[in-house]
Amino acid sequence: MIDKKVSNYLSSHRQEHLERLFELLGIPSIAAAEASVHPCATAAAWLAEHISKLGLQVELPGPSTHPYVFARNQPQSGRPTLLIYGHYDVQPPDPLELWESPPFEPQVRDGAIYARGADDDKGQLFAHLMAIEAWQRCGGLPVNVKLLLEGKEEIGSPGMEEFLAASAGKLAADAAIISDSEFFAKGLPSITYGLRGVSYLEITVRGPARDLHSGLHGGAVTNPVNALAAMIAAMHDSHGRVAIPGFYDGVIEPTPQEQAEWAKLPFDANEYAASLGVNALGGGERSLPLLDRLWARSTLECNGIIGGYTGKGSKTIIPSSAMAKITTRLVPGQQPEMIMDCFRRFLVDKTPPGVTAEITDLHVGAPAVLLSRSSPAMTAASAALEESFGQAPVFVRCGASVPVTEMFKRMLKLESVMMGLGLPEDNLHSPNEHFHLEQLWRGSLAAAAFMQNLAGPKA
Amino acid sequence: MIDKKVSNYLSSHRQEHLERLFELLGIPSIAAAEASVHPCATAAAWLAEHISKLGLQVELPGPSTHPYVFARNQPQSGRPTLLIYGHYDVQPPDPLELWESPPFEPQVRDGAIYARGADDDKGQLFAHLMAIEAWQRCGGLPVNVKLLLEGKEEIGSPGMEEFLAASAGKLAADAAIISDSEFFAKGLPSITYGLRGVSYLEITVRGPARDLHSGLHGGAVTNPVNALAAMIAAMHDSHGRVAIPGFYDGVIEPTPQEQAEWAKLPFDANEYAASLGVNALGGGERSLPLLDRLWARSTLECNGIIGGYTGKGSKTIIPSSAMAKITTRLVPGQQPEMIMDCFRRFLVDKTPPGVTAEITDLHVGAPAVLLSRSSPAMTAASAALEESFGQAPVFVRCGASVPVTEMFKRMLKLESVMMGLGLPEDNLHSPNEHFHLEQLWRGSLAAAAFMQNLAGPKA
Repeated sequence: MIDKKVSNYLSSHRQEHLERLFELLGIPSIAAAEASVHPCATAAAWLAEHISKLGLQVELPGPSTHPYVFARNQPQSGRPTLLIYGHYDVQPPDPLELWESPPFEPQVRDGAIYARGADDDKGQLFAHLMAIEAWQRCGGLPVNVKLLLEGKEEIGSPGMEEFLAASAGKLAADAAIISDSEFFAKGLPSITYGLRGVSYLEITVRGPARDLHSGLHGGAVTNPVNALAAMIAAMHDSHGRVAIPGFYDGVIEPTPQEQAEWAKLPFDANEYAASLGVNALGGGERSLPLLDRLWARSTLECNGIIGGYTGKGSKTIIPSSAMAKITTRLVPGQQPEMIMDCFRRFLVDKTPPGVTAEITDLHVGAPAVLLSRSSPAMTAASAALEESFGQAPVFVRCGASVPVTEMFKRMLKLESVMMGLGLPEDNLHSPNEHFHLEQLWRGSLAAAAFMQNLAGPKA
Repeated sequence: MIDKKVSNYLSSHRQEHLERLFELLGIPSIAAAEASVHPCATAAAWLAEHISKLGLQVELPGPSTHPYVFARNQPQSGRPTLLIYGHYDVQPPDPLELWESPPFEPQVRDGAIYARGADDDKGQLFAHLMAIEAWQRCGGLPVNVKLLLEGKEEIGSPGMEEFLAASAGKLAADAAIISDSEFFAKGLPSITYGLRGVSYLEITVRGPARDLHSGLHGGAVTNPVNALAAMIAAMHDSHGRVAIPGFYDGVIEPTPQEQAEWAKLPFDANEYAASLGVNALGGGERSLPLLDRLWARSTLECNGIIGGYTGKGSKTIIPSSAMAKITTRLVPGQQPEMIMDCFRRFLVDKTPPGVTAEITDLHVGAPAVLLSRSSPAMTAASAALEESFGQAPVFVRCGASVPVTEMFKRMLKLESVMMGLGLPEDNLHSPNEHFHLEQLWRGSLAAAAFMQNLAGPKA
């Protein structure tokens, strides 16, 4: 059972913790922002001050605009060392007009904190800071803790590989914990053992040197928007499978055991569709079970497209260019570089005469990752979640990417536990992102229990 | 031969005429603009004042924001009545950054006037005002003149049908002349006897109620941008032919005689491609001769597309919606309403599950038009062009649409002469639109000669 003093401390400091978290959420630390005093630097400075007050040593290595926040307690020999990862940067909040309260003015409504970053990932990382605080105020942490908080996760963690390579010794640990994912359902804690990877590219199609009169030149000139649309359409076959040659080379399929487990999870496709406001789930490979499509199959999404006249009314032009942003989600066996090569060859093949196509790798690449489900840290986390939420966790995969998980494994030889504290309904990356207070309170308790479990029975 | 006094008057008033035209070009009369004091009303008022000074009676019927400018001289019985049409509204000037001088600060460079509307259509209509002025200052116009200048041509002439229906008596004439087209080539005057029609629509594809995380939901949810791209791609077959069922029903093909004439025109496809900055002419039905494709074949162009995240860097979303603007150019036999119905049926068929598609008719519809090549007005115009430019005109069609031409024919039973004064290189609807001074000087002479020829030998 979780130390009584620690759980009492967490219960009795909720108001104070909420006030601190609101301060952090109030900083618009959009990684992609451009500013002379970068809001990510402001958020990092806030965190450094807060964490120092918890009795940890803090430093801010890395770029001054988006520094890493690295902190550690005084290590004691014979204790396991835990690396806690989180990210303090957030997605851009637009479209702003769809927010019911301003994204950087946090507000509690209906038992949840509404703000950009409330779930992803400031709220989740703060649960760990609350646990650290509780242990420090109640006799000290039971494990050696290293904290690594990142400021560029939402733009694909550029520089992280170099940082990990240079800091491998400093970051050495026995286990890592990452809370940047979610419960499978409300009331059903989950440990995520598999993530999809990601590859992000931009395609620009260029035609005439200037916008042309569509009447005078229509029928002679290749229209870049039509051409781009045709290229995008050609990326899928009629079954929703990606039709780019080589795309599936080397894919590692999920095991029958995993698929059998997923089939048993409480998942109502109609409710899911309704929660997203769609009339059918028509994405991906439509003949496969939905969780297979979301967790274990590649997908290709246009994240944005623009070209020509998009204002009110009419302008009769053949646009001179068009651009699309495209992400692919990768499954085990797919490498981002290989996928980018497939796209390059595909474009050479599919670019019609009269236009040129250029592909830009946005360097938001990460392979997929699969983690051991039987490590000591997994066992400790599983017990902590059951104690704190009254329900044993299920083991799930996730369709999203947390690139650092794969890097920890590959570069630091460190298995992570993904103990997500969000809920599927939290609107991350969307307007009105929120994080339930109950998830914060119980999540901080789980984070504290996890440390205790990882430390093992007192000597 | 053109009256010597008139030609002398035109030669000796060039500076003054240029100054007046610059005033008109300085008014940013973008039909699509939204403003409390509409720039089109300003342009109409300027024209009314200018035309009054030429001794014509002027009125400004129609909407106060974009009034028609209607003017006439004192009619004399026994003389033919000529209706001169032009439009004083212009296309939006964006992208502004590509203009070498501001679009509404006219400037002469290399023998041409650079400004939005310099060619299309303020410069061309002004040539007729110069001709009227010359005749009025040299003894009076040889024909009864009615002037109709429009302020909504670039947004598809909404309201023109109703205006013509209500004003048929007032506008009654023996012939109409429209200068809103161009020479086939520099030095080669042209009379346009055929125009393509146009149909303009907007398609909006809506998916999830909000932008979604592309990792968490990619593979389950139909992506509206991918769906829209697939729909647009499906609008053409692999030969560049429009693949929408019913689209070609009733099409009237050009005659073999016309095609033989077109084949003889001096037209260098490589030069044409180079002038547009494209590496090949890949638009439309690629197996057909280029002038057939431009003048006598339908075409379908995306004028613009937008959806999702289009800013810098990466945002990993499935956008909630996407929109495209599409024009089709119509040939004789195609009706805009029928085309819109084809699109509606096509969308019902092609909308994938998980999204909805909505089509909006932007009401920029006009059928194609074919004019008689042997009317007295055609003969008069042909002779006027030969006298003024020293070269007999060729008869051509044009891929663009001048909806009023079709309306004059259908509603006023009035054949128009399209005596275009622009050049193909004038960048209309594009940045750096311009109009050669030589075309203005000789064009005004041609306009004056046309009136004289139409009046016939002096009684």
